Amino acid sequence: MTNDLIYRGAVELAALLRSREVSATEVLEAHLEQIDKLNPLINAVVTLDEEGARKSAAEADRKAARGEQLGPLHGLPISFKDTADTAGMRTTYGHPQFRDHVPASNDLHVQRILDAGAIRVGKTNVPEFAAGSHTFNRVFGATRNPYDPGKSAGGSSGGAAAALAAGFQPIADGSDMGGSLRNPASFCNVVGLRPTPGMVPNTDGSNVFFPLAVSGPMGRTAEDTALLFSVMAGASPEDPHSAFAQNTAHVPSEPGDFAGLRVAFAPTLGGRVPVSREVLDAIEPQAAALSALGARVELDCPDLEGSDKAFRVLRAAAFDAMWGDQLAAEPDAFNHFLAGNIREGGLLSGRDVIRAEEAMTRLIRKAAEFFERYDLVIAPASQVVPFDVDLEYPTEIEGHHLDNYLDWMRAPYLFTPLGLPALSVPAGFTPSGLPVGLQMVGARGTDARLLRLASAFEKISSCSAVRPQGAAVL
Amino acid sequence: MTNDLIYRGAVELAALLRSREVSATEVLEAHLEQIDKLNPLINAVVTLDEEGARKSAAEADRKAARGEQLGPLHGLPISFKDTADTAGMRTTYGHPQFRDHVPASNDLHVQRILDAGAIRVGKTNVPEFAAGSHTFNRVFGATRNPYDPGKSAGGSSGGAAAALAAGFQPIADGSDMGGSLRNPASFCNVVGLRPTPGMVPNTDGSNVFFPLAVSGPMGRTAEDTALLFSVMAGASPEDPHSAFAQNTAHVPSEPGDFAGLRVAFAPTLGGRVPVSREVLDAIEPQAAALSALGARVELDCPDLEGSDKAFRVLRAAAFDAMWGDQLAAEPDAFNHFLAGNIREGGLLSGRDVIRAEEAMTRLIRKAAEFFERYDLVIAPASQVVPFDVDLEYPTEIEGHHLDNYLDWMRAPYLFTPLGLPALSVPAGFTPSGLPVGLQMVGARGTDARLLRLASAFEKISSCSAVRPQGAAVL
Repeated sequence: MTNDLIYRGAVELAALLRSREVSATEVLEAHLEQIDKLNPLINAVVTLDEEGARKSAAEADRKAARGEQLGPLHGLPISFKDTADTAGMRTTYGHPQFRDHVPASNDLHVQRILDAGAIRVGKTNVPEFAAGSHTFNRVFGATRNPYDPGKSAGGSSGGAAAALAAGFQPIADGSDMGGSLRNPASFCNVVGLRPTPGMVPNTDGSNVFFPLAVSGPMGRTAEDTALLFSVMAGASPEDPHSAFAQNTAHVPSEPGDFAGLRVAFAPTLGGRVPVSREVLDAIEPQAAALSALGARVELDCPDLEGSDKAFRVLRAAAFDAMWGDQLAAEPDAFNHFLAGNIREGGLLSGRDVIRAEEAMTRLIRKAAEFFERYDLVIAPASQVVPFDVDLEYPTEIEGHHLDNYLDWMRAPYLFTPLGLPALSVPAGFTPSGLPVGLQMVGARGTDARLLRLASAFEKISSCSAVRPQGAAVL
Repeated sequence: MTNDLIYRGAVELAALLRSREVSATEVLEAHLEQIDKLNPLINAVVTLDEEGARKSAAEADRKAARGEQLGPLHGLPISFKDTADTAGMRTTYGHPQFRDHVPASNDLHVQRILDAGAIRVGKTNVPEFAAGSHTFNRVFGATRNPYDPGKSAGGSSGGAAAALAAGFQPIADGSDMGGSLRNPASFCNVVGLRPTPGMVPNTDGSNVFFPLAVSGPMGRTAEDTALLFSVMAGASPEDPHSAFAQNTAHVPSEPGDFAGLRVAFAPTLGGRVPVSREVLDAIEPQAAALSALGARVELDCPDLEGSDKAFRVLRAAAFDAMWGDQLAAEPDAFNHFLAGNIREGGLLSGRDVIRAEEAMTRLIRKAAEFFERYDLVIAPASQVVPFDVDLEYPTEIEGHHLDNYLDWMRAPYLFTPLGLPALSVPAGFTPSGLPVGLQMVGARGTDARLLRLASAFEKISSCSAVRPQGAAVL
């Protein structure tokens, strides 16, 4: 029976739980069994509290038996990203210094997910302080891709994406500065939504004026992702820019939604980034399929001039503010990538930061104009397919040399400064069976519509239904 | 008849215009006559287009005669702040370099006001680039206070406040970084609302992440101010932080609104700022009056720790970004106050700017907590009463020496980084007849409620009805 319950959609599972056709305990045991079987290989879940989870599931079942009001995530097991604070549960941020760190309180989105009835199981792996899109650190090592354990699961929400793909949980939280919800979704054949900034309030960070980092939902389908988004989204007085945020319900959709849709197709972001042939081979037919459904697909891309510099400057400035003093005192405290970015931040002037904010302002306004002409942008979610898990980062794409660990992440991060909702949805596989994600980018604040379009797209591509072979066999 | 039409409330005048009991031409001529009579003394209106205004008024009258739909500001004459771009009308920003500058397009709030049917008459005076709260510049000289032409009208919306007080117009636009809507309102016995950032979109500035400067409405009463606010407020795709903004209707209110209201009274902002005895003498009885009406008035103040530094750092960083290069090339281009602030900005590091944003984040969150315990903060709008118009700035308050031109503006500017709506409402007069304003500060986003409370307060204090003696006599 357990095998019947893993890989069910979160929406379907939630309905079964609410109608008491299955119990939270049954659902939990099925997922714990899968974690027990596959996590030693995948290394997605790095902290596990089976006992606590069993207690919560039993309590959830008693609550259901008493006929109490049940939350929208009632009985769904979840491990949280290890950069999100979980009260009483180890949270390492992927850094040895926090190996034994146990926060006293939950981050807001964690609290909202638990308040909605989800069962806390553990934590999912991240790169050191979530920097970079390949998940490995000195505390727990690397997370492996369920579609090929020799490959990266992406990052920084790599543990979350791999946990979804491996059937460890039906929903997952993540966060995204430069693609950390989109890249791992792309690598692991799941969905990750980077919401419009403010939709999910920024309450854990110390700077609500830092516009790059957001928390967001992941699932194996857009519909499941939308269910989780409806719980994570909503205004908080702690984030002044969340005032407009509304909880959004998940809405099914049909391929017919694409008829007449104005779609900009940006396979190389207007020639700005090199993209692997295998990625283009998977994505180009999907653009053609949208066209065949009646979408008006044109080769076009939002203005990205200055986006690269703005992103790197604001990211480095934030890193310096967080860690500059510590790096000066302990030169070996951070991995060499991160240390380099922190040092770059330490050299910035106030004017550099203001110029980056001005560049973002220009990009946001240009994007608003662009979305008067288009409903949707589609682009690669990642420039590469999942690479060797033992590499630090890819150094070459189609003959273009890459200088550092950020260079291969430009397909997602160049969209970050535009302040738009962006997601990755499963779009195809390479000949060797590695997943490829399609990035969909919508107008500011149209997150719910973007999820509906992704849901319609899933019905066309049918990729979401393809499970990892290795995982299925094991 | 003309004398009957000036000093009418904007709401009342708009009703008379809409019902065609008076024509836009009659209303305009009445105000032009008053400008002609008093502006040579007051110097509030620095650009005047009588011919253009007469054409617009005649067209408005034809529109009304044809029975067309009329906007909420139909037929109300207005001169715009000289820092706001007006298409085809000279806009100097108070700087000699722009003495003959004619913008090609209107700032968004100007366009909204004109679209709502207001009649453009001219421009109101400002300090050089609106820096500082005393209105004088090298293009037009100083604006004088209608309640005593030997005194300052305040600033930077000093021309706007004086124009209202002198009966030149029934509504006025302004803008506020450190008190530029509140201080001149206080000096000129009118109302100025600094809205919650985002309510009136920031579309003229080049940096939507700069959280200090906002545009806002002024009027002789809170009700009139609310009418103009309902036209200026509302989301724009050019400002991502305006997404939540709603047009708000003006709502009359009663003194009974204060019963049970939880009011924090902060006469010296928790001991942080020296305040002139004359200001306290005017304000303290008003706090007592609120208490007598059933408000629970307690001596308390929101946390302002770090506000001063955050304000000065972010202001200087923005000034450096705008004018640093020009100052380096032309050392005499700016007045000595402004040049000093620009130079301070040039010395800031990226970390300084991020630390200031973090300080604001903390203050915003602390303020949200504070407003769980209180409905309203009342404080002085200005630490001083209107001073000699020939002074650059006051150098002393009750024995406290002031170092520079910003020191006397702390009562308004310390609230700026908290991201709250704040207004000044007429609250009393000194023995020599100079106006004193009460600053009311509300929870984020409660701008409409704040205006209602100010309207109720006006019925208690009865100060709004007191017109300048000199102006009335002339």
